[in-house]
Amino acid sequence: MTRAVCLLSGGMDSTTLAYVARDMGYRIYGLHFNYGQRTEGKERECARKIAALLPVEELLEIDLRYLSRFGGSSLTDHGIAVDDFDEERPGIPNTYVPFRNANLLSIATSFAESRGAEAIFIGVQSQDYSGYPDCRPQFIETFQKLIDIGTREETRIRLMTPFINLTKTDILKVGTTLKVPYQFTWSCYQNEDLACGTCGACHFRKKAFADMGMRDPIPYREE
Amino acid sequence: MTRAVCLLSGGMDSTTLAYVARDMGYRIYGLHFNYGQRTEGKERECARKIAALLPVEELLEIDLRYLSRFGGSSLTDHGIAVDDFDEERPGIPNTYVPFRNANLLSIATSFAESRGAEAIFIGVQSQDYSGYPDCRPQFIETFQKLIDIGTREETRIRLMTPFINLTKTDILKVGTTLKVPYQFTWSCYQNEDLACGTCGACHFRKKAFADMGMRDPIPYREE
Repeated sequence: MTRAVCLLSGGMDSTTLAYVARDMGYRIYGLHFNYGQRTEGKERECARKIAALLPVEELLEIDLRYLSRFGGSSLTDHGIAVDDFDEERPGIPNTYVPFRNANLLSIATSFAESRGAEAIFIGVQSQDYSGYPDCRPQFIETFQKLIDIGTREETRIRLMTPFINLTKTDILKVGTTLKVPYQFTWSCYQNEDLACGTCGACHFRKKAFADMGMRDPIPYREE
Repeated sequence: MTRAVCLLSGGMDSTTLAYVARDMGYRIYGLHFNYGQRTEGKERECARKIAALLPVEELLEIDLRYLSRFGGSSLTDHGIAVDDFDEERPGIPNTYVPFRNANLLSIATSFAESRGAEAIFIGVQSQDYSGYPDCRPQFIETFQKLIDIGTREETRIRLMTPFINLTKTDILKVGTTLKVPYQFTWSCYQNEDLACGTCGACHFRKKAFADMGMRDPIPYREE
């Protein structure tokens, strides 16, 4: 059985993707990141639960709180209010953490090379959050080149991003087939007791469940 | 005055490079990394001293000790002895930390984008350590592409690696002109009281001072 590193954020996309990786027969090495995001407590709890259920060979929790020391993102700077979803707003949402995915993927590559893993699964998705420059297909292609050049001659690590052109509804469809336990996933950027229902992450999550005619098993503030 | 992020390891190359950046007129934002290397105490002390002397606008010390949890490198795994320099040994020295420079440069890019810096100075050098895949010119070129794609539209950050094709002797020549205080730099991989004189880093440092007919101001074990 070949090994894969799976990024487990605790959200819907990365959880579904880990079930895809398991379904493909990989032994899973999980990575969870704390970068000072508001809802880290809930996200970590979800990632640990999913890691135990999959199960994974190893779950490493990595402290990236230094990203919050750089400031400028509402996700990590608790003095800035999280933008509600607004289709009309131009540009990048204020939840953007500069170059975040390059940080996550660099660590994943170091971990993968150390463990002899042949794949890294990351649930990036360019469609819903087209505002984030480090979620685009060209970013992933360039990172693949960086891995090929920057690791040992004999190392072969493939970046796996099967969700990059899917919508959240498509992802939920895949996950439903694989019986992903969505009650142990968290998407809201704002709050960890009751999901706010209005931030960008809640917006797309709710839309996906509505599109599929399913009930979202997590609690929302307005309900 | 434009801003630049300078990686300050505490070693000869990054210290000399920061003096080059200062000489070019940049306001300097320093980054120092602790990734569990054996000689971190001495390296940090040197980086702080140099930061105070330059001076820098800000010095951020970032904890990357998670890299040592991956294992496999003599630089961070204290159970593995550091290889002495041996011209005949094929392949990559056992001080290699998988994909280390991608980790360092990702953080530097997040920091640079947050601070509006237009340049990142990193003292990589492909000649002496041709064994490290993440020190090669192609690696730097690909990382530049990753920055261009993975940051905001309006962000312009240039990776500056003027030492990439220089030898340590060339670097020392540059530093001597700029009056770099080499007594506050540390290169040895092995020990922090007296430099071992035999590891790869000591080998190239000693050769540079010998080539220039200069006395190295730091203490060595054999002296």
